[in-house]
Amino acid sequence: MKRIESRDNKWIKRLNGLKIKKNRDKEGLFIAEGLRFIREIPKNWEVLAYAVSNAFAAENDLSLYEEKAEVLCLTDALFAAVCDTENPQGILAVCKKLDWDADAVLAKKTPFLLLAEELNDPGNLGTVIRTADACGADAVFLSKGSVDLYNPKVLRATMGSLFHVPVFQNIDLHALSEKMQAKQIPLYAAHLKGNRYPYALPLQDACAFLIGNEARGLSEDAAALCDAWVKIPMPGQAESLNASVAAGVLLYEVVRQRLPK
Amino acid sequence: MKRIESRDNKWIKRLNGLKIKKNRDKEGLFIAEGLRFIREIPKNWEVLAYAVSNAFAAENDLSLYEEKAEVLCLTDALFAAVCDTENPQGILAVCKKLDWDADAVLAKKTPFLLLAEELNDPGNLGTVIRTADACGADAVFLSKGSVDLYNPKVLRATMGSLFHVPVFQNIDLHALSEKMQAKQIPLYAAHLKGNRYPYALPLQDACAFLIGNEARGLSEDAAALCDAWVKIPMPGQAESLNASVAAGVLLYEVVRQRLPK
Repeated sequence: MKRIESRDNKWIKRLNGLKIKKNRDKEGLFIAEGLRFIREIPKNWEVLAYAVSNAFAAENDLSLYEEKAEVLCLTDALFAAVCDTENPQGILAVCKKLDWDADAVLAKKTPFLLLAEELNDPGNLGTVIRTADACGADAVFLSKGSVDLYNPKVLRATMGSLFHVPVFQNIDLHALSEKMQAKQIPLYAAHLKGNRYPYALPLQDACAFLIGNEARGLSEDAAALCDAWVKIPMPGQAESLNASVAAGVLLYEVVRQRLPK
Repeated sequence: MKRIESRDNKWIKRLNGLKIKKNRDKEGLFIAEGLRFIREIPKNWEVLAYAVSNAFAAENDLSLYEEKAEVLCLTDALFAAVCDTENPQGILAVCKKLDWDADAVLAKKTPFLLLAEELNDPGNLGTVIRTADACGADAVFLSKGSVDLYNPKVLRATMGSLFHVPVFQNIDLHALSEKMQAKQIPLYAAHLKGNRYPYALPLQDACAFLIGNEARGLSEDAAALCDAWVKIPMPGQAESLNASVAAGVLLYEVVRQRLPK
């Protein structure tokens, strides 16, 4: 265990640097904060280091962490300063980003995919990934212009699901939709002009759903890539749904149709 | 139109006071911010006053508002200070709270209700109300200990749906469940120990769903009030869903079952 007591230590600078997307991209690293989140890290996922507060180190057995990676022990004040959460739990992990294999996902027998265009709200994006994980989706694809997956608020809202379901960023939706067409994976989107309920779609087969930006909805360009526009019924007076609720309704229709009879 | 240029004006003090629940409760008033939200106010809903910024007054026809209530025109700085949003749109409405009639709701032929126990996240609560509205639910009941419906963040997340669907606060769940039993309205809750999927429930009949706190789930007390525990299938690896997504999945199963064939 390495004790760190100075804010000039290079690890402190590095941890602070990882709060910024540019540095996360350059280093290929991100920070997972909190015990609950860290418990979701799969055994084979590469962790560069753990950082703990003095208080955490005094109360917890660290051998489990030391077996896997270097453990840095920071003064409580230094630890709080490198954390994004207001009431940090005393532990964080510096994780390697993983490069998932998109071709392997598309080559599955009946792929079940979620695509999102320019999702901007960190809470929404994280929740959508968590829902896709719960539903057993095969992957999530995020278009260019979406909020960064490794933004601390996004990570928190995923509740660790980014360790379970492959998420691809900076996706060119045109190029992806061409690949999907070649594999005969139909692309559906909820759209105000939709004329089919999701309940009428053949979702036991391969399927992909495209959801749009929270405020603007889908761009015309992206909507034109779809094989069918779907209408989520709204018998009440609200004119639209929250983006992560709409995604949940669509993804769960796949779950319902695929349940063993 | 009344011009207000001093922060000592009694209206300024009153508007600032309404940021606090205690004052909202005492006055029976709440503040609706922004054009989009204000457009959702039904014609017969009582508005005590509108407040606009000088900039808004210079660019908009206010006669529509003046027909309905007193219009206060604040300096841009004063207006920004009374608003909760960071980039206010220049208009807010001081609305009367409405007392909905719970007995009338319970007396409907096939009521469709949502109950929530101690929902604490303003965004979640607002989203749940918006979803209940979209689904055509007859009412939302909030237990004691929930975040205040008239909290600005809750209001914003409802997107105006609190004007469409009756929402009851400070509900004693025991007393409500007795009334529901008398009316033969079954109460369902998503529960880890649930053994029936929502798809197997008779939701064309009267039905009510109970959802729990975001972090703690349902209390044992509340779970014991239910007629059946329901399992939302999770074929993936996530162990739980975001509270508003879970509510969306349950409420939309009612919509699906009630769709005209």
